[in-house]
Amino acid sequence: MGKSYSLAEIAKWVGGVVRGDASGRITGVSGIEDAESSHITWLSHERYVPMVRACRAGAVVVPERFGETPMPALMVADPALAMVTILERFAPPIPRPAAGVHPTAIVAASAKLGRDVAVGPHVFLGDDAIIGDRTVLHANVFVGAEVRIGRECELWPGVVVRERCTLGERVIIHPNTTIGADGYGYHFTGGRHVKIPQIGTVEIEDDVEIGANCAVDRAKFGRTVIGAGVKIDNLVQVAHNVRIGPHSLIVAQCGIAGSAQLGRGVVLGGKVGVRDHVVLGDGVQAAACSCISKDIPPGKKLMGYPAIEYEQWVRERAKVRRLPQLTDQVKALIERVERLEAAANDP
Amino acid sequence: MGKSYSLAEIAKWVGGVVRGDASGRITGVSGIEDAESSHITWLSHERYVPMVRACRAGAVVVPERFGETPMPALMVADPALAMVTILERFAPPIPRPAAGVHPTAIVAASAKLGRDVAVGPHVFLGDDAIIGDRTVLHANVFVGAEVRIGRECELWPGVVVRERCTLGERVIIHPNTTIGADGYGYHFTGGRHVKIPQIGTVEIEDDVEIGANCAVDRAKFGRTVIGAGVKIDNLVQVAHNVRIGPHSLIVAQCGIAGSAQLGRGVVLGGKVGVRDHVVLGDGVQAAACSCISKDIPPGKKLMGYPAIEYEQWVRERAKVRRLPQLTDQVKALIERVERLEAAANDP
Amino acid sequence: MGKSYSLAEIAKWVGGVVRGDASGRITGVSGIEDAESSHITWLSHERYVPMVRACRAGAVVVPERFGETPMPALMVADPALAMVTILERFAPPIPRPAAGVHPTAIVAASAKLGRDVAVGPHVFLGDDAIIGDRTVLHANVFVGAEVRIGRECELWPGVVVRERCTLGERVIIHPNTTIGADGYGYHFTGGRHVKIPQIGTVEIEDDVEIGANCAVDRAKFGRTVIGAGVKIDNLVQVAHNVRIGPHSLIVAQCGIAGSAQLGRGVVLGGKVGVRDHVVLGDGVQAAACSCISKDIPPGKKLMGYPAIEYEQWVRERAKVRRLPQLTDQVKALIERVERLEAAANDP
Repeated sequence: MGKSYSLAEIAKWVGGVVRGDASGRITGVSGIEDAESSHITWLSHERYVPMVRACRAGAVVVPERFGETPMPALMVADPALAMVTILERFAPPIPRPAAGVHPTAIVAASAKLGRDVAVGPHVFLGDDAIIGDRTVLHANVFVGAEVRIGRECELWPGVVVRERCTLGERVIIHPNTTIGADGYGYHFTGGRHVKIPQIGTVEIEDDVEIGANCAVDRAKFGRTVIGAGVKIDNLVQVAHNVRIGPHSLIVAQCGIAGSAQLGRGVVLGGKVGVRDHVVLGDGVQAAACSCISKDIPPGKKLMGYPAIEYEQWVRERAKVRRLPQLTDQVKALIERVERLEAAANDP
Repeated sequence: MGKSYSLAEIAKWVGGVVRGDASGRITGVSGIEDAESSHITWLSHERYVPMVRACRAGAVVVPERFGETPMPALMVADPALAMVTILERFAPPIPRPAAGVHPTAIVAASAKLGRDVAVGPHVFLGDDAIIGDRTVLHANVFVGAEVRIGRECELWPGVVVRERCTLGERVIIHPNTTIGADGYGYHFTGGRHVKIPQIGTVEIEDDVEIGANCAVDRAKFGRTVIGAGVKIDNLVQVAHNVRIGPHSLIVAQCGIAGSAQLGRGVVLGGKVGVRDHVVLGDGVQAAACSCISKDIPPGKKLMGYPAIEYEQWVRERAKVRRLPQLTDQVKALIERVERLEAAANDP
Repeated sequence: MGKSYSLAEIAKWVGGVVRGDASGRITGVSGIEDAESSHITWLSHERYVPMVRACRAGAVVVPERFGETPMPALMVADPALAMVTILERFAPPIPRPAAGVHPTAIVAASAKLGRDVAVGPHVFLGDDAIIGDRTVLHANVFVGAEVRIGRECELWPGVVVRERCTLGERVIIHPNTTIGADGYGYHFTGGRHVKIPQIGTVEIEDDVEIGANCAVDRAKFGRTVIGAGVKIDNLVQVAHNVRIGPHSLIVAQCGIAGSAQLGRGVVLGGKVGVRDHVVLGDGVQAAACSCISKDIPPGKKLMGYPAIEYEQWVRERAKVRRLPQLTDQVKALIERVERLEAAANDP
């Protein structure tokens, strides 16, 4: 990367205290196992504590009261937050199209571009689309008519945003994700499924990030809403008229069916399914692979198929694991009762 | 939207009867909860009946014998079907590329375009591709060599249809979906997986709709077939040599493994998995998140992992939920039998 | 297809022995059920043995000691391997862009192309990208800055490979797959999720094949690694810092969470989930729809939610299926013990 800083300089970025030699040069960031002597690493999880001893890093970021380390330590209140800053400083630059419209892009005459918008090669921008200042549209992005995108957004290659959807500020959408395709709605009549027009839109609020190859459907009418600060991983399905509350986390391959409502700060582990029209209260957390089929009050932790409260699931699971013994106990009981009955009948 | 119709006019579109003032102007369609006084709404589900009372809509579409409503009611035999018509009339226009070939599209000299075909910006159309009348190819669509697409189809941005696949009439494919990629087939020999050529195609029949970011693989040989009127949601996997019978519904994130055969009118809820070579009879219905691992006769309803008949699943689930009590009962029995045995041995 | 070979010629390609008339002309390959009299078919699975009798194929490829067949038989040591060769000979040609750079492609001046590289229409190739000899980039492919791609790779339309990722030789990536998007990593502070920079890359080794509409995320730092010869099906999620050992098979819709490590020759059936940081030993096999939540030693076979050893799962499943009877047995026991107790108390 070519970058090099002393540990003392790095400590200043993050407001930390160096224990040991602060003059060593650091040229990169690595995980504990891969770190070389000019790298800085950190303790991301307690389970890695034993690894610090075998680690060859030139420095390690640790919590404030962390014990002895074989290399200089940078002690901070919140190692994970410090690492965000350190990673940003060491990050290689992300290549982006230059501000302006690439000559191969197709931009409607009525589209309105803010200051320093970057429109990459082969981008399509429809009638009356509005793009905020400093937003970046990478190559091959499709932005439909009347779409409004706020400031400082980034849409990666292959993203499709269909007509009339809106994105707030600082929204990031990763490659090949589709925003605003028709919701899945049919009415069965005369032996066939008649398509129900999907005349609504998608509204994505500020600071949302959506992973690669996701699908967020437009509403039947009204809006599908992704709340402020929501972070969605890859390959996630968000159906028509879903509402996801602010600062929720939706891990990869989740599927949220039509008109489901998620509260604020909901966390869905990978591959979770949420049934249509279900309401999840604020702060609900569901373990990976759960299938949620009914309304859940705020703050509950869920697991299972169908999802139930996590502690109940653990209890049931333990009982199922003991079923072979329980079956044996019942078998033995039957024999003992038979003997008792025989003795009672034939004293 | 700028559109405005009297309730009397709307009643004529759908053959309904107005109860109350038929002269009110209607400017849009909304859900029961969001409706404003110039909107029309409808009763989509019995569970919403209580909401009609609190609803502020200017009119509501209801079934013929529906009770009193606080606003004028449009009574029809089939409210959902009436709403299809009403939504179509109020729908804002969907922007599409104009008929003709956009100057940035790459169209093989041997490709044959029907009347009023629209080929959008940066589309690729391979040798000997045939596109039917009035079909629309949005920006960035890829249509391989010798592909045949029928009349009045619509392929949204980023759709890829590889060589020699065929689409019937009125087929809709949503953004970033892939049709005709190689099936997943290898033969393990000499310590590595040798690729088995996938020389077949995909055949999509009339009136099929396929959601965003799906993958429908070409056959190893012969054809992968999506039957007439099938509706597929987003992020669905259809493997090589699968056959889906007419008018089936495949909800989001389902995966159908190689050579599985689905009958007519099969319904798979979200995230259902179907094992390779399995045969599902006509009208089989599987609840969301089921994993189907064996052949299923027609008409069965399924649930579970592995999927079993729905009623059996409900019974088993109830028993598992009672396992803690059952365990306690067995524990108490053991103690009672021990006391009986002690009494019998020591009379 | 227009191709026609005698059975004797075909036998020479695969080193097999013909039993019966070797002079018949073969014009294509089909499955046992669909084969016509000029087609060759094969016995792909023992379950199809009865079908050979009803089959109308002109010839059938069978194992060396296979019994009588109604049509000429081509006997070989490994029918599946022979079919790879036969399918390759009968396969219609795959249309590809011609060697050279299509005039609509955007290729950075600093990009380096090997011999006979094919760069299709509307491809984007970033600064300092390096493409090996005979590699094919189909239309609408995006290759970011400093990406290195080896020889004889094929990237299908809509594939996105972000900056600094590397692909080995003979890598195939199917349409609309995303390589190198940011991993999913945030740090919650001040009421919001702060994005953790994802400064690593993806390294894809030789002979890897990745299906359509997949997402393979770049590492937080260091590399996400797909080992040599790994074959990944469609719609698969590979999170940041995952390592997949050589020659593993990952079937459609699997999701592998952050920093999970899969050994050599691991096989994950469709829709399997693997938790973050989990380590799967060499040769681990997981049945479709399993959710793996802990480290697994080499060679184990898994199934379930959560995944446990396959044989344990079968035992537990059998017990759950018997739960209604067990419950009835306990109920009957309670009555019998009550009678015994009554008799004991009232002799």
